[in-house]
Amino acid sequence: MDVALRRGWSLTTAFPFMISRRTLSLFWRCGAGTPWPPAPTGRRGAAAPRRHAHSGATPERLPFSRLSQEDLAFFRETLPGGAITDPDLLEAHNVDWLKSVRGHGELLLRPQTTAQVSEILRYCNDRNLAVNPQGGNTGLVGGSVPVYDEIILSTALLNNILTFDPVSGILTCQAGCVLEGLSGYLEEQDFIMPLDLGAKGSCHIGGNVATNAGGLRLLRYGSLRGTVLGLEVVLADGRVLDCLSTLRKDNTGYDLKQLFIGSEGTLGVITAVSVLCPRKPSAVHVAFLGCQTFEQLLGTFKLCKGMLGEILSAFEFLDAACMGLLNTHLKLPNPITDCPFYIVIETSGSNSAHDEEKLHNFLEEAMTSSLVTDGTVASDDTKVKALWSMRERVTEALTHDGYTYKYDVSLPVEGLYQLVTATRDHLGSRAKNVVGYGHVGDGNLHLNITSPGPDPSLQGAIEPFVYGWTAGVRGSVSAEHGLGLKKRNYIYYSKPRPAVALMGHIKTLMDPRGILNPYKTLPDDLD
Amino acid sequence: MDVALRRGWSLTTAFPFMISRRTLSLFWRCGAGTPWPPAPTGRRGAAAPRRHAHSGATPERLPFSRLSQEDLAFFRETLPGGAITDPDLLEAHNVDWLKSVRGHGELLLRPQTTAQVSEILRYCNDRNLAVNPQGGNTGLVGGSVPVYDEIILSTALLNNILTFDPVSGILTCQAGCVLEGLSGYLEEQDFIMPLDLGAKGSCHIGGNVATNAGGLRLLRYGSLRGTVLGLEVVLADGRVLDCLSTLRKDNTGYDLKQLFIGSEGTLGVITAVSVLCPRKPSAVHVAFLGCQTFEQLLGTFKLCKGMLGEILSAFEFLDAACMGLLNTHLKLPNPITDCPFYIVIETSGSNSAHDEEKLHNFLEEAMTSSLVTDGTVASDDTKVKALWSMRERVTEALTHDGYTYKYDVSLPVEGLYQLVTATRDHLGSRAKNVVGYGHVGDGNLHLNITSPGPDPSLQGAIEPFVYGWTAGVRGSVSAEHGLGLKKRNYIYYSKPRPAVALMGHIKTLMDPRGILNPYKTLPDDLD
Repeated sequence: MDVALRRGWSLTTAFPFMISRRTLSLFWRCGAGTPWPPAPTGRRGAAAPRRHAHSGATPERLPFSRLSQEDLAFFRETLPGGAITDPDLLEAHNVDWLKSVRGHGELLLRPQTTAQVSEILRYCNDRNLAVNPQGGNTGLVGGSVPVYDEIILSTALLNNILTFDPVSGILTCQAGCVLEGLSGYLEEQDFIMPLDLGAKGSCHIGGNVATNAGGLRLLRYGSLRGTVLGLEVVLADGRVLDCLSTLRKDNTGYDLKQLFIGSEGTLGVITAVSVLCPRKPSAVHVAFLGCQTFEQLLGTFKLCKGMLGEILSAFEFLDAACMGLLNTHLKLPNPITDCPFYIVIETSGSNSAHDEEKLHNFLEEAMTSSLVTDGTVASDDTKVKALWSMRERVTEALTHDGYTYKYDVSLPVEGLYQLVTATRDHLGSRAKNVVGYGHVGDGNLHLNITSPGPDPSLQGAIEPFVYGWTAGVRGSVSAEHGLGLKKRNYIYYSKPRPAVALMGHIKTLMDPRGILNPYKTLPDDLD
Repeated sequence: MDVALRRGWSLTTAFPFMISRRTLSLFWRCGAGTPWPPAPTGRRGAAAPRRHAHSGATPERLPFSRLSQEDLAFFRETLPGGAITDPDLLEAHNVDWLKSVRGHGELLLRPQTTAQVSEILRYCNDRNLAVNPQGGNTGLVGGSVPVYDEIILSTALLNNILTFDPVSGILTCQAGCVLEGLSGYLEEQDFIMPLDLGAKGSCHIGGNVATNAGGLRLLRYGSLRGTVLGLEVVLADGRVLDCLSTLRKDNTGYDLKQLFIGSEGTLGVITAVSVLCPRKPSAVHVAFLGCQTFEQLLGTFKLCKGMLGEILSAFEFLDAACMGLLNTHLKLPNPITDCPFYIVIETSGSNSAHDEEKLHNFLEEAMTSSLVTDGTVASDDTKVKALWSMRERVTEALTHDGYTYKYDVSLPVEGLYQLVTATRDHLGSRAKNVVGYGHVGDGNLHLNITSPGPDPSLQGAIEPFVYGWTAGVRGSVSAEHGLGLKKRNYIYYSKPRPAVALMGHIKTLMDPRGILNPYKTLPDDLD
């Protein structure tokens, strides 16, 4: 153990590499090569596949109208140049980011104004045409693409920043603004977005809100439920709901915008967003530490919350199995000595000297009390990114290890790693690798299981087990990815039946014909 | 100007007094002595008063059942010792904190368990008996007391702390826990509640959530919409909705708990709450500063957000008129030289030396750039409280100045004070005093107008004017107090008609017979 040698915790690292999150996102794949659901047989969109037995199976096509020539004429007139039927142009909008779900939409609409969205939905509702609202199409649960022939309603051209107030830090923009573009705009004015995601180069802020995206800054700035101040939403029948408040406080009745945050486009189409943005921190430091046990990792988390307090902005972890994949598949060397668990701690503050001193004091205490075995710290941008990549590139390393079964669960933080151990024990030699990493600060575990190829019997051994285990500790079967198409029927593992029934009543109230993003979020067997 | 003399910004103040927020709350009164609405004539509860012309008038009694002897027998059997009909014991539950609204409830129920709340509501729904859910009864808009003979359902005995996890900082408790009690419990474990209110000695956490209470820590820790992680709620028909999650992240479908936050007991009765609690800051500093113009005050706010960054926990203001009332009525001396505007800045951090240095640097810069004229700083507990009292005791000083018309509005922060000036100009000599104070950091202005006594013509001059002005800048006519009985019909100044109509549909969905807190939150003329 070389703790003694590192007592000075020098602010350097020997890492030569640097990779942007955008680059990483291109590699984030699992289960590629097996489009899901399978294309129906016979004429495209005509034959409904039979209902499968397992919960993730494709539901039957609901009796929506089929797109007619009259419909196409209407859309071409309403959106000159913005009603697209070219199959080549439609391809990327029919397949999800993981290439695991493929729909058969025949029409892509690209409105530029809220009024156009309103006209589209009014028409679709009258005609009983199903609609798939789509942002950057970076979702992981099959929520952002059609399942059958739903019309794809893209927010891509709703991409204007409307206002920014540098006194209050409140930004108002259209829903199709790309997260990275908003971040760049704000950084010029010394502000940042309150959320940051691996997919930021592609994802739209409207999609982020519709899916209640979590990401890397949640520990510090909280969820979108607190930072989103207002929304403009077009309802299923075309009515525009203007809740685009730019106020931090508004207690005039029910907070209707909350209905749309995280509802995955099933209750309305978000067309504009106002969001409270924090000031850009002037100092960022990252520490990469090693622990011998998960209990020591939790002890480090407690110590860190107390000693770093207001400057702590991330507390992430990966296990030794993840480190093995980084070493093997990406040739990333371990920056410290080998340990069973690794922590990435980030601080963000307004005074670099103060932050360094806090970090130094914390690390001294963590070493003295033998919570951490080894570690290194970085403060310059390149080295910070290099240390971060040890956490962020785990997903990429997994894709090189084989077919990956991915689970995104929330658990009580004390038991966060027990699910990994339990799954490893449960699967034994059936799995190639069982690895755990994620956001300790948010109680969010990413559990990944690799296999040489798709293996239905392995999946059958994982899925009731992982969901049941999660439900047993009152966890959530979807921490930040949502339910979409793939997880809709697993909702009962995390929500009691009366709550799901109430969701169904709200869906019926808001979208009586069910045209908005059908087959998503809500289970097939609603009461 | 004695800025030069104060360049060292000594951490002392000569204030000899100290007053707790609880003591202050006892003096927070306006319009006392005129119970509102007036008691109906004739047999108690029998004669419905005619509908008044103005928006704040009492609505007609809705056709709910009257309490029968059979009903009383049922409640006495269900809640042995917890069904109270003694008028002396009922008195305090029928009158609001401001003594401005008086109901005529004949039965007070004090359940101890969620199952009892469920039994009560199932019975009331079947019998069409109206129910007024009541927490600490500290609301300011007449939402927490009956209007007619509604059964008062108190959360006072639902007062157990259920769990606290010192790793995650997540507290779970019953709805009737008093905020101050929770704060005391947490402070022993080095945590704090994410909200703090003047009424903390009386208010219940369930009532705080039901009214989406704001208060003094919102700038730092955000609103309850972000910090409340879960709720247990009993619906109008007695069904229990268990959304008592203790997870920071849960994206399994619609976030139903948000419906109940801020709905003022009109959609369900909150019986338990889980909330994310921050660590207790180890260092707190308060600065009391003076500015010559409101523009300078805003400039100070911008500077402060940049230089104090993560340790800024409050930015409050009062005007010279408030200072005059503090001097005259409470004999509180101005701790600095006279200025048109005063600021209270609070910092909370984990390292006192760092915070002092940040504060020192900020104050140097604020003086050098002539943003502030004078100031003083405190760090020990007694002196911090003394400086805070210059902001907190304004409400008390107002009660000594005469009858007070109180408004609680959200405005774009740049125009926060313009409403005070405009109201002063508009009312001229008709008002005794027009004063402004509030939470600059949250864009929340408390506008108060005093008069020698109740003056309907003065009120008539204020109310369309203030609400119209607020609506004109897309502000909110209720920033943190809610709508309750008094403001329900002013909702259209801040919410468009389709949004209010949707609120009505949700109310009908959740509470078809309308038994929960009738006459509150929703306007009389719902579409």
